[in-house]
Amino acid sequence: MERNTINIESKKPIIPHVIGENGKKGTLFFRNPPSVIGRFSIVGKHEADGPIGHYFDRVLKDCMNDESSYEKAECSMFLEAIDGAIEQAGIAESDLDFLIGGDLLNQITSMNYAARCFTVPYFGVYNACATSCEALTLGSVLLDGGFGKRIACCTGSHFAAAERQYRGPLELGNQKAPYSQNTVTAGGCTILSAGGSGVKITQATVGEVTDFGVVDATNMGAAMAPAAMTTLVRHFENTGTDPSSYDRIVTGDLGKLGEDILRELMKDKGYDMPNLIDCGHMMYRLNQTMSQGGSGAGCSMSVLNAFFLPKLESGELKRILLCATGALMSTIINQQGESIPCIAHAIVLEG
Amino acid sequence: MERNTINIESKKPIIPHVIGENGKKGTLFFRNPPSVIGRFSIVGKHEADGPIGHYFDRVLKDCMNDESSYEKAECSMFLEAIDGAIEQAGIAESDLDFLIGGDLLNQITSMNYAARCFTVPYFGVYNACATSCEALTLGSVLLDGGFGKRIACCTGSHFAAAERQYRGPLELGNQKAPYSQNTVTAGGCTILSAGGSGVKITQATVGEVTDFGVVDATNMGAAMAPAAMTTLVRHFENTGTDPSSYDRIVTGDLGKLGEDILRELMKDKGYDMPNLIDCGHMMYRLNQTMSQGGSGAGCSMSVLNAFFLPKLESGELKRILLCATGALMSTIINQQGESIPCIAHAIVLEG
Repeated sequence: MERNTINIESKKPIIPHVIGENGKKGTLFFRNPPSVIGRFSIVGKHEADGPIGHYFDRVLKDCMNDESSYEKAECSMFLEAIDGAIEQAGIAESDLDFLIGGDLLNQITSMNYAARCFTVPYFGVYNACATSCEALTLGSVLLDGGFGKRIACCTGSHFAAAERQYRGPLELGNQKAPYSQNTVTAGGCTILSAGGSGVKITQATVGEVTDFGVVDATNMGAAMAPAAMTTLVRHFENTGTDPSSYDRIVTGDLGKLGEDILRELMKDKGYDMPNLIDCGHMMYRLNQTMSQGGSGAGCSMSVLNAFFLPKLESGELKRILLCATGALMSTIINQQGESIPCIAHAIVLEG
Repeated sequence: MERNTINIESKKPIIPHVIGENGKKGTLFFRNPPSVIGRFSIVGKHEADGPIGHYFDRVLKDCMNDESSYEKAECSMFLEAIDGAIEQAGIAESDLDFLIGGDLLNQITSMNYAARCFTVPYFGVYNACATSCEALTLGSVLLDGGFGKRIACCTGSHFAAAERQYRGPLELGNQKAPYSQNTVTAGGCTILSAGGSGVKITQATVGEVTDFGVVDATNMGAAMAPAAMTTLVRHFENTGTDPSSYDRIVTGDLGKLGEDILRELMKDKGYDMPNLIDCGHMMYRLNQTMSQGGSGAGCSMSVLNAFFLPKLESGELKRILLCATGALMSTIINQQGESIPCIAHAIVLEG
């Protein structure tokens, strides 16, 4: 058991992980870093046509995935992602102690309905597109505390289901704003294990809600970039690191525009970010006319599982900082004139 | 520091809290049980007119609470609840390490917008009306692991905001089904602290999603009772307790009908539940014509804070089991013919 490590070393008092008094608030240093033992990604056709398309584990043949509605199709992606990750980990469903996840549909529908198919204690979480890192952080906290051995973390999103919920019926054929992003059809499940020898989550910085007053619900990159900045600056300060400490700094889904804004914001704070790359920006080719790129709760989780985790496993990358960003937008309050609060959570992954 | 307790006692290997192999899955035994150091409840007029109305800390003068929409009114209740709990705890906002919570609005709007007003790292969670115990469980896990010193857990709901989102415009004047429940206008915030001498959360049992095939979205009590049964039975088995081990077994918001169904279901499993009481059932008087009683994410949190915590503090109650129940209903998938998956999480509170 990982806990034994603590017992052996526990001659001196253990310092609490979060020390509000000295400005370390929000950063969690795991004593027993959990490792990734299973991962699966599933995407739609447009995502498979993108530059990293061939990395994903499975591609839907169409947006319905043999279901009768977009919402049920999204749910089926979650089921396939969880089953795929369980198989990849070489474990059984009964080996899972907890299932943690969420999605963009109202009442996190697809995650809830997917969880119905598993006899596993379940925590539903929601921080929009930052849900991936939220789930991985809470999973790590549970494992670090010895509250379980294996936890599945799962997020996803579906373009057609999100579009009709957040914007309008697809049949309207609305034009896209040039600074908008495309909700990806993608799902991912990552299985964390106490101990083990795989890629480890060693630290996490939990973000606070940040709102710079953006009211344009089509301009998510501009709304979310300040949240990413807040969390990244806090992470660097709390851990005594800087951008050069990581092979890649990977943001969740700011898109091309949001990535550019974040680079500027960070420069103002004294950080150059030559190794910054955004999962939404990576998702599509320029000629796919997806405006600024991808977004959605499935974006960072699927790209992490398909692209970055294998590179960490092979040693091509040693250490990355994944900072998932979420726009905590509510269509109803946004229509009532309120700006869009955003959040970002960051985790450190080491090979 | 609480962590020192572990160090001193850590001669023998610490047993992980969840042991899948021996059927203890889902139950968390806290080594450093957090204590409640602050609590606040806020309710609407109907709830204040109920039998426990005089216990609540604050009553809204009307359903708008000086805001311009029901949604913003709900959000303002969260702000007042968090501020009230901070004041009651005698701490400052900067003393909070994390804020955890959620509500019933799409994208957990009121919690997100309330979190915007605090410079505190934030986890959004959603398990419908079981969100209260979900937040308290995750808060306890974070504190038990030494990841913080003080955490605010917050949930709420607003009748008018929920009604127009889940059912129809209030202006329609729809008749209520006799087996329905009334979403309470209520919010509550509970502040947990590592260590301390107050009421402690000593154990938690995390539920799995349970669905007995109820498709009637007005009959929440019938849909949720099986989830409560699943979690209670698991809790009793994992902890070696039975109903008589607790002064009260308090369910979240099954209402009168759901409470009766749960009593029958538990009898089938061999458990008599004379000390079972439901927060939704407690909320209104018979002559208030609220059908089976209250429901909503604010129901169990406000009743816990206003009614049960003071009784645990005074010693009138020694030990209760709070089992919050949630219907993970999605209006859109329900309209597509799917039944309603439900979940229940239970926590043990000791005076």
